[in-house]
Amino acid sequence: MNVKGILTATRSKTPLVQAITNYVTINDCANVLLACGASPAMCEVAREAYDFSRLSAAVYCNIGTLTPEQRQAIQEALRGAAEKEIPVVLDPVGCGAIPSRIDYLEELRSQYPIQVVKGNLGEIKSLAGIETQVRGVDSVDNGEDAVEACVSLAQKWQCVVAATGIQDVVTDGTQVAVIQNGTQMLTKITGAGCMAGAVIAGFCGAAENPFKGTVAGLLAMSLAGEKAAAGEGGQLPGTFKVKLIDEIHQLTEESMAASANIRYFSV
Amino acid sequence: MNVKGILTATRSKTPLVQAITNYVTINDCANVLLACGASPAMCEVAREAYDFSRLSAAVYCNIGTLTPEQRQAIQEALRGAAEKEIPVVLDPVGCGAIPSRIDYLEELRSQYPIQVVKGNLGEIKSLAGIETQVRGVDSVDNGEDAVEACVSLAQKWQCVVAATGIQDVVTDGTQVAVIQNGTQMLTKITGAGCMAGAVIAGFCGAAENPFKGTVAGLLAMSLAGEKAAAGEGGQLPGTFKVKLIDEIHQLTEESMAASANIRYFSV
Amino acid sequence: MNVKGILTATRSKTPLVQAITNYVTINDCANVLLACGASPAMCEVAREAYDFSRLSAAVYCNIGTLTPEQRQAIQEALRGAAEKEIPVVLDPVGCGAIPSRIDYLEELRSQYPIQVVKGNLGEIKSLAGIETQVRGVDSVDNGEDAVEACVSLAQKWQCVVAATGIQDVVTDGTQVAVIQNGTQMLTKITGAGCMAGAVIAGFCGAAENPFKGTVAGLLAMSLAGEKAAAGEGGQLPGTFKVKLIDEIHQLTEESMAASANIRYFSV
Repeated sequence: MNVKGILTATRSKTPLVQAITNYVTINDCANVLLACGASPAMCEVAREAYDFSRLSAAVYCNIGTLTPEQRQAIQEALRGAAEKEIPVVLDPVGCGAIPSRIDYLEELRSQYPIQVVKGNLGEIKSLAGIETQVRGVDSVDNGEDAVEACVSLAQKWQCVVAATGIQDVVTDGTQVAVIQNGTQMLTKITGAGCMAGAVIAGFCGAAENPFKGTVAGLLAMSLAGEKAAAGEGGQLPGTFKVKLIDEIHQLTEESMAASANIRYFSV
Repeated sequence: MNVKGILTATRSKTPLVQAITNYVTINDCANVLLACGASPAMCEVAREAYDFSRLSAAVYCNIGTLTPEQRQAIQEALRGAAEKEIPVVLDPVGCGAIPSRIDYLEELRSQYPIQVVKGNLGEIKSLAGIETQVRGVDSVDNGEDAVEACVSLAQKWQCVVAATGIQDVVTDGTQVAVIQNGTQMLTKITGAGCMAGAVIAGFCGAAENPFKGTVAGLLAMSLAGEKAAAGEGGQLPGTFKVKLIDEIHQLTEESMAASANIRYFSV
Repeated sequence: MNVKGILTATRSKTPLVQAITNYVTINDCANVLLACGASPAMCEVAREAYDFSRLSAAVYCNIGTLTPEQRQAIQEALRGAAEKEIPVVLDPVGCGAIPSRIDYLEELRSQYPIQVVKGNLGEIKSLAGIETQVRGVDSVDNGEDAVEACVSLAQKWQCVVAATGIQDVVTDGTQVAVIQNGTQMLTKITGAGCMAGAVIAGFCGAAENPFKGTVAGLLAMSLAGEKAAAGEGGQLPGTFKVKLIDEIHQLTEESMAASANIRYFSV
């Protein structure tokens, strides 16, 4: 299996992605969606979220700053997404630090289909009911049992699960991809995880299935990160962030295929 | 007619601009207001919006992420603006995709004076009641009848109307300016339209009339975009956005006059 | 007295800083916290703010866009901070322009301990009850009596008070530090003040006392600003902002000690 064609499909279809996301990195998410070829619609108002999701090719929900208004908007967006059968990508930010967020996500998932959950390892483990180490919204887990945690949650929730870290792990509960690309610089800026989630939603809006869309999305972010970090000033976080958007924009099928370091196996 | 002197007036008067705007690009709007010589006040709290608008030289309202709190704040700000007779610039983001936003804007306009409406062509046509093509918050209209649409809305709403696109059109219902500057790079980042609206508000806070302020504002954005796109890395969206702010800051009366490509005519 | 060791302590302890801050510069605040070695948690939801503050090493409250939700979140965060006895840094944005904000801050301060108030001179004078000149959220005070104003408020509120300006003044009511570093470029971007507040909170989360943490935080911002302004393109606001984050990231104990221009005296 490979992820060839997804970048091209995204750039030719320009999928509209409704994003309900935190205020910290909402601008970065919109810009990264444009850079990967998708079209961002950052609508978080409850009364409009249902209509917007029905126009969209994918929905991205990120609970980093989950206001009461956003809670309602997520409900409405997921209702529209379920009716239109479009993929929903959920980013469970901070559910390791704040246990009540787990209850919220469990309830959400019992009401509406979720195709992809993408978090850091601490968040994925927290949702899977496995003990882990977090510091605020960041995971400080060493990542030894990342595959087991992702498979466990994927089987429990019946969806694609991705955990970001030194290695990124993606699974649909039967097949697993381990992406060994990336750079530590992605941890030096805020929003790398949110941007990854947004790109996954963009790719899932154009991909044939959410597993491929998720692998391609995380690969795109990791490779763009590698290139940004290697450029002039790329070891400095302000410059790195600017170059990261530049590099997402410059990705090609060829450059992705040439640099990808992905290991696939079955559970 | 020309727009000479407006940039200089803005930089010497430092007009305070109250902006109630979407969370996606609020930072860019504040920075572009500073870069063009104005002073940003991004107050969106209902209980303070009336007081802030009365201290301001212009008000910018952008409905991109229109929360209930922002709805109230816009009412309060427009009440203050009407009392102080300061210009109000309205950015009808997304009204092409979400028809209920048209009703909202119609109601707002029936209650308070609006001096300028600035949108993409899809939004302007939607407000004018003309059929158009949109994708989410973006217009995909080919722009053939942009002048007619702007004139129609300007006459209906009795205000200055501007539609951005490959060409920017500005009209007060009798005179028309068509600005043939700009760059496609402005469509590769989020917020170029919002920033244009903010600059228009800044310029209208210092200009003798809103038609001139609007022409000058769109010209400034287009010329800064051209220069940013022509610089090193300017074809990459992350770098382009940084340079766009740099170029707004570096605009001069001379550089604007030398590069302006504006056609004026009467309706 | 000097501020040696605080940067190192911040980078080794990685203090979690809960920030409830305005939507305009929330991304910059998160990135500057990472760049100085702290860990940002930008939680502003009332139902979660108490829990988050109890996990944190410091709390930063900035009232730039004070929504009803943020008001409640600040209450909850300050309650948690008081119980855990962690430092609270308050940024009284706009209280010079909007007098009702003074009442709000007075009430807040009567209910919960505040360790540091950091504002521009107009804001500090407004809180101290001294006449001043403001334009929107910016101070246009000439700064002659900055020390007196800070000492007055520090003695009235029994906390550390810092006023930013051409010179930055910090006092705990008995000792005073006047920092003569910095650059005018910090006034050409939005959020320099907010970022300074965030860095102060990060440093106070690792410093032995809030006076030292505040002096070190303002010094770090001023020195990073100087270096950013001196670099290529550093006189342009878009580029300057990118380099400012880069330079915060590159600060060292040695570079801070070598460039610091601080005058200390007793009241």
